[in-house]
Amino acid sequence: MLNKTNRLSLAEQASMQIEQLIESGVWQVGMKIPTEPELMEELQVSRNTLREAMRALTHAGLLKTRQGDGTYVSSSSALGPVLKKRIQRSDILQTLEVRHALEREAAILAATRRTEQDLEEIQQHIESCKLAVHSRDHAAYALADIAFHRSIIAASHNPLLMELYNHMTEGVRETISDVMELSSHSYYLQNHEMLLLAIQQNDSSQAAETVRIYIEHSKEHFQQQRG
Amino acid sequence: MLNKTNRLSLAEQASMQIEQLIESGVWQVGMKIPTEPELMEELQVSRNTLREAMRALTHAGLLKTRQGDGTYVSSSSALGPVLKKRIQRSDILQTLEVRHALEREAAILAATRRTEQDLEEIQQHIESCKLAVHSRDHAAYALADIAFHRSIIAASHNPLLMELYNHMTEGVRETISDVMELSSHSYYLQNHEMLLLAIQQNDSSQAAETVRIYIEHSKEHFQQQRG
Repeated sequence: MLNKTNRLSLAEQASMQIEQLIESGVWQVGMKIPTEPELMEELQVSRNTLREAMRALTHAGLLKTRQGDGTYVSSSSALGPVLKKRIQRSDILQTLEVRHALEREAAILAATRRTEQDLEEIQQHIESCKLAVHSRDHAAYALADIAFHRSIIAASHNPLLMELYNHMTEGVRETISDVMELSSHSYYLQNHEMLLLAIQQNDSSQAAETVRIYIEHSKEHFQQQRG
Repeated sequence: MLNKTNRLSLAEQASMQIEQLIESGVWQVGMKIPTEPELMEELQVSRNTLREAMRALTHAGLLKTRQGDGTYVSSSSALGPVLKKRIQRSDILQTLEVRHALEREAAILAATRRTEQDLEEIQQHIESCKLAVHSRDHAAYALADIAFHRSIIAASHNPLLMELYNHMTEGVRETISDVMELSSHSYYLQNHEMLLLAIQQNDSSQAAETVRIYIEHSKEHFQQQRG
């Protein structure tokens, strides 16, 4: 794809190298990155080139500078910040529908691919949901519910699906808890136990049907709240 | 979310203004953007600030500079380039599964939301597929097939779903035609006519079932080819 006029500049090469350090996990989110002189030495680039690369990565949301402190890794991939920004200007219903698309497919895939460990993980999150319902802890339920859905997504063993879903649910965490009410938690809990059973029994069509039911319920609920 | 130490720099503000011009469609893909002096005047920023903003947008894949010519708009949103890059390092099966997730959900939504115009559009792409099968034109079939799927996605009337799907299928265009063979085109064609019928009749569950059938077929096909 690269031709003479599109050749990568030194700064672009440097930013790609740094991006790879981040996306491969060598540099973790929250980590303070090495100092300017250290990076100039490591990447073999000039101060100006390095600064240009850093600015591009900051703009992309991968790095964040804290004045008088240093520069930190703020996202594990370039996809996260861009997706979050896109979702912020989306209608909540639109986002919910895309989330549902990924949840439905993941449940179907999970029914054929889940390991024993996946099942245990899903079961654990259902237990946390139950505890939250018992103690009427709204916030705890919202967190446990997201963890439950993420564990279904993880059981699909599709990293791209997981990455998209996780980034999308980071952006909508607050909106989900807005949509939910304590009264409906028990309903979802029952449905989610059915979903676990279907996945356990390798029953893709039952998994899809269970997801269909909670999606319809959650959309009705959402429409009512919106009025 | 913004605090004192995170305040946007002038270059970030300028790049956001330009991003909005692009994402709102004032600046279209392929368009040559105004000259540096014109932009400095329009955005009321210095040359250095403008250049920093332009570099960030070029790094994000929204702009492309042609040496000795000028700078052009290269993507309609920041999501496209990032998603394409992410997909390039994904396994084809993973990408196919995410595509399927969006296709399945879109078919279900389309069955309740499609307009007469949507139906006509879908029908037209089916006709193009038929023509391609008759003339045994492999490349034409691949294009018509993508256009068919995009028209189903469009009938979901969910812009976020459409944007994700369109960016994802830009990245995988070649891989789709690799996976398909002329012999299986007639099979998909029949299935796609059934899907149109289900959507026409507002039958969400039949639409989901028809999508399920072609997804299974296409995954089997893919696995066979991969060996």
